[in-house]
Amino acid sequence: MKDTLDLLTHRGSIRKFSDKPIPEDVLHNIYKATICSQNYANGQQYSIIVVTDQKKKDFLYETTVSPTSGRGMSYIKKAPIFLLFVMDFNKIDRVMKKERVEMKIQDSLEALLIGSVDVGIAMQAATVAIANEGLGSVAVGAIRTSVKEIIETFELPKYTYPIAGLAIGYLDEGVSIVETPRLPLKSFLHDNSYSKAAFDELVDEYDVKMKEAYAIKGIADLTWSKFVSNYYGKPIYIEQIESYKKQGFKL
Amino acid sequence: MKDTLDLLTHRGSIRKFSDKPIPEDVLHNIYKATICSQNYANGQQYSIIVVTDQKKKDFLYETTVSPTSGRGMSYIKKAPIFLLFVMDFNKIDRVMKKERVEMKIQDSLEALLIGSVDVGIAMQAATVAIANEGLGSVAVGAIRTSVKEIIETFELPKYTYPIAGLAIGYLDEGVSIVETPRLPLKSFLHDNSYSKAAFDELVDEYDVKMKEAYAIKGIADLTWSKFVSNYYGKPIYIEQIESYKKQGFKL
Repeated sequence: MKDTLDLLTHRGSIRKFSDKPIPEDVLHNIYKATICSQNYANGQQYSIIVVTDQKKKDFLYETTVSPTSGRGMSYIKKAPIFLLFVMDFNKIDRVMKKERVEMKIQDSLEALLIGSVDVGIAMQAATVAIANEGLGSVAVGAIRTSVKEIIETFELPKYTYPIAGLAIGYLDEGVSIVETPRLPLKSFLHDNSYSKAAFDELVDEYDVKMKEAYAIKGIADLTWSKFVSNYYGKPIYIEQIESYKKQGFKL
Repeated sequence: MKDTLDLLTHRGSIRKFSDKPIPEDVLHNIYKATICSQNYANGQQYSIIVVTDQKKKDFLYETTVSPTSGRGMSYIKKAPIFLLFVMDFNKIDRVMKKERVEMKIQDSLEALLIGSVDVGIAMQAATVAIANEGLGSVAVGAIRTSVKEIIETFELPKYTYPIAGLAIGYLDEGVSIVETPRLPLKSFLHDNSYSKAAFDELVDEYDVKMKEAYAIKGIADLTWSKFVSNYYGKPIYIEQIESYKKQGFKL
């Protein structure tokens, strides 16, 4: 039996998976943990596309580009299963049509907030359950580089939108969890109102720590400050707003 | 030691808290688990306002209205701690100014997706850690009814936005976890492409189950289909888009 706190605090994304198939009972535990997680108003407004078809995994690999490296992410095609998490107000709409009530949620920003927070929650529940079963996973927000193609390929209907993915599988031979250091705890916490003090004081300390972590990965002279500055200095996934609107949502 | 799968699958929100204070080491474990969770590009773009000031909890109670009941939620003021989860690109902007790079992320829909998925993930990690420590919690998305007032009261700067809250504490005497039934697992899962079949077949079965669950709570003649139809038949939190834009974000 694994210690829950240990699973939560000593974690890391896995990007190299073995070919070992995932037994049905293990998958059942993972899926069950996922859907039991909290969600907005018990609307359960998300769906999971279980991608096992190699052609579809290859498609996802080919269309999804890492904004960090500008390259494809081979773990998407190599993982035995890729879970595509989709915000899903289509099923709510179907229920409401049956009840003869017109759905309104799609007309406001709130739909996206409900959908994406709920996907975050479900994905994290899945991630913890996956680690508890001795498997590894990596979340892929970069599927949003190719929302248009994904909607087509996975036949996502109106009032649905792909939010993120999770590549899962057993760890490849020799692979182990590498923990990424986080900003100091104090820098996240604000005492009753927002304060800039803690973060500004602690970021230099974190830059030193991350410089060492990058160096171990073979990247010289990179700090966290430089990394985020490079990352957020250019617009990303800007085309997706058109796809979002095409799926029937307003902002 | 608690079984992780059990914590994930046999869960329920807690809405009645005891006055028992939460020890520092317990809080440390909860916060540590939260910040160790996965996040987008290691940007760690969120902050947590730890609300312990009774006046501020009272304020949150008074301004936050449950869209279900139309009333306030007393657990917000009675919980010893209310964690307000805030999407935070302000700290990223400060880092980038130091690096002399202009931040661009706030100009696209993607900012909201990154921020709200990450808050969902962090909040779920917190929730599991809270349960593991023997405490209870309830997530409060309804803080978005009063985003404008919250931004003012908690002095949330430009490029931040309050996404959700988590009321936490020890369970009040006589209170135990009540599990809410979920839609059947099969109805969430789609085999390689979206299919309406499973959900449409299984929703009637779930309506029967939820009718019984509502009856136990003293609500007669309510099904899940009726509940969501009532809930999503009216626009909710529509004013928030103005606050969102005022915080410096574009869509």
